[in-house]
Amino acid sequence: MDALSTPLALSLGEPAGIGPDIVLTAWLQREERHLPPFFVTGDPACLIARARHLGLAVTVAEVAPETASAAFPAALPVVPTGPAATAAPGRPDASSGPAAQAAIDAAVSLVREGRARAVVTNPIAKSVLYANGFPFPGHTEYLAHLCGTPAPRPVMMIWSPELAVIPATIHVPLAEVPRLLTVELLVETGRIAAADLTRRFGLAAPRLAVCGLNPHAGEDGTIGREDEDVTRPAVEALRALGIDARGPLPADTLFHPAARRTYDVVIGAYHDQVLAPIKTLAFDTGVNVTLGLPFVRTSPDHGTAFDIAGTGRANPSSLIEALHLADRLAGADVVEAAA
Amino acid sequence: MDALSTPLALSLGEPAGIGPDIVLTAWLQREERHLPPFFVTGDPACLIARARHLGLAVTVAEVAPETASAAFPAALPVVPTGPAATAAPGRPDASSGPAAQAAIDAAVSLVREGRARAVVTNPIAKSVLYANGFPFPGHTEYLAHLCGTPAPRPVMMIWSPELAVIPATIHVPLAEVPRLLTVELLVETGRIAAADLTRRFGLAAPRLAVCGLNPHAGEDGTIGREDEDVTRPAVEALRALGIDARGPLPADTLFHPAARRTYDVVIGAYHDQVLAPIKTLAFDTGVNVTLGLPFVRTSPDHGTAFDIAGTGRANPSSLIEALHLADRLAGADVVEAAA
Repeated sequence: MDALSTPLALSLGEPAGIGPDIVLTAWLQREERHLPPFFVTGDPACLIARARHLGLAVTVAEVAPETASAAFPAALPVVPTGPAATAAPGRPDASSGPAAQAAIDAAVSLVREGRARAVVTNPIAKSVLYANGFPFPGHTEYLAHLCGTPAPRPVMMIWSPELAVIPATIHVPLAEVPRLLTVELLVETGRIAAADLTRRFGLAAPRLAVCGLNPHAGEDGTIGREDEDVTRPAVEALRALGIDARGPLPADTLFHPAARRTYDVVIGAYHDQVLAPIKTLAFDTGVNVTLGLPFVRTSPDHGTAFDIAGTGRANPSSLIEALHLADRLAGADVVEAAA
Repeated sequence: MDALSTPLALSLGEPAGIGPDIVLTAWLQREERHLPPFFVTGDPACLIARARHLGLAVTVAEVAPETASAAFPAALPVVPTGPAATAAPGRPDASSGPAAQAAIDAAVSLVREGRARAVVTNPIAKSVLYANGFPFPGHTEYLAHLCGTPAPRPVMMIWSPELAVIPATIHVPLAEVPRLLTVELLVETGRIAAADLTRRFGLAAPRLAVCGLNPHAGEDGTIGREDEDVTRPAVEALRALGIDARGPLPADTLFHPAARRTYDVVIGAYHDQVLAPIKTLAFDTGVNVTLGLPFVRTSPDHGTAFDIAGTGRANPSSLIEALHLADRLAGADVVEAAA
């Protein structure tokens, strides 16, 4: 039955990064790790070359999405997209950006056409894409753009079995965080999180824990006013929407095992506040999930790692977790067929 | 031999907080937890009343420091100090501030006179002390003041067997951190940390990992300039002093087990960046250690917890770890005597 289900679409990512490595090694573990069927969007020749480079016995099969699940047990299914990706491991070239972008475009199109159940994206290199004229801050914003106008507001969650966190602000200088952290941002983030935790994760009444910006959540305004003036009103607004939100809570006492049992997700004010704790607990197995999109999108929680691409040292754990989580979030959605 | 060693001095802390509770329950575990001998500085009547309140069979012995170790196996030794502490559990009164302060003064005097090996301090309530005219930001600054003029620069480290961290800035609004984080602050913090890790912890060449202020340590200046303009020069200055410092390092990838094996202490830019990870790993067992003082000072890593004072629910784990660590850092220092 698995072999006949609609597959996941996995974009190749930056061709010179570790994306091809971890696709190959993940597929080789498809049986022991019970991987859901997936196909890769990208240049099949890139995967064939990387398998040869690494000495891995992987058969690559060019497929249409509809035949990917049937092909999956015996070969790594690839839906060919975009230009040839000619870069050597670790050395992106002029083909890298267009190839990476075409792979994303194809994966999103196929999931929106119902020919894939969810999108899993391998890491891209922003600097490579920028050099190619890519006008988006990152992967997630590009995915939102591909969803049409008005683009949905995407929310990045890092998920692991131990903990799930959402940084309300992400890749911005710390000095800008107090200005960027608004009631509107926290309420929108919380609203989207609660909606997707219900719709995708099946939680009837998701419990949101909202960190204070300041140490000890500001100690009632004695260590900065923001948690009284911004965080607390945002939590109250979420509660007025019927969402089970609590806060502002001191971030330093929020991540031990007993505290973790009291919520489903932590919304932090900024990057390190919540990503340092989750990567303390789940360094190799965290999954990046984009909430707020009209489809399920997950991604391994690491970068292109050019320094180890093609060496055989890349760890596919986070990609494997991303495939499993995408499978779970997209639901069964099994194609009816004779078994 | 233990019974004849110079004892540790444990200040009672805020009399209406959980200090008396955890002193009593720690002492009751003196054998199974192999506690080093200590005496309490404070009002013995407060401890007697709390033991009765909690129904604990603890004999309190008023002692001089020199007889505390001999008394320790059979009774909780107390060196009486200051005014009577009359407050009920959870309800500090006018006697609380003077009683807490007198207990600190006595503990510091006794360790400076060589009549105690180290100071362990129970939590105080800053608001209670402030109401009493206490002019210091907190416990640590007061201890530095008691060391004379010029006061040493104290550095707060939170230590656990898994991880040790130092926040370069502590209880300040996040918005002020970028301004407060200077090369001078980081260098002084690193210098004091390295010196005490050698002198007290016995590490010949302590390894310091210095976090960047910004996400991903600023990605070479693309996410804020501070890590290039402040953190990196500070690390270089520390290295020029012969100290094994590395950084700026991304905080979110610094706390998983493999990363933790590469350093002895993390110096973070601000409170939550390093306290959230250590409390994720060691919530009940973290110990607050003050570096840079002329004596060893440790403290449990929690507050007065007025809400559970006198209920029997206070956990003495962090105090027990603070006693063990003070014992270790102060060295053997055994009083010569006929056994």
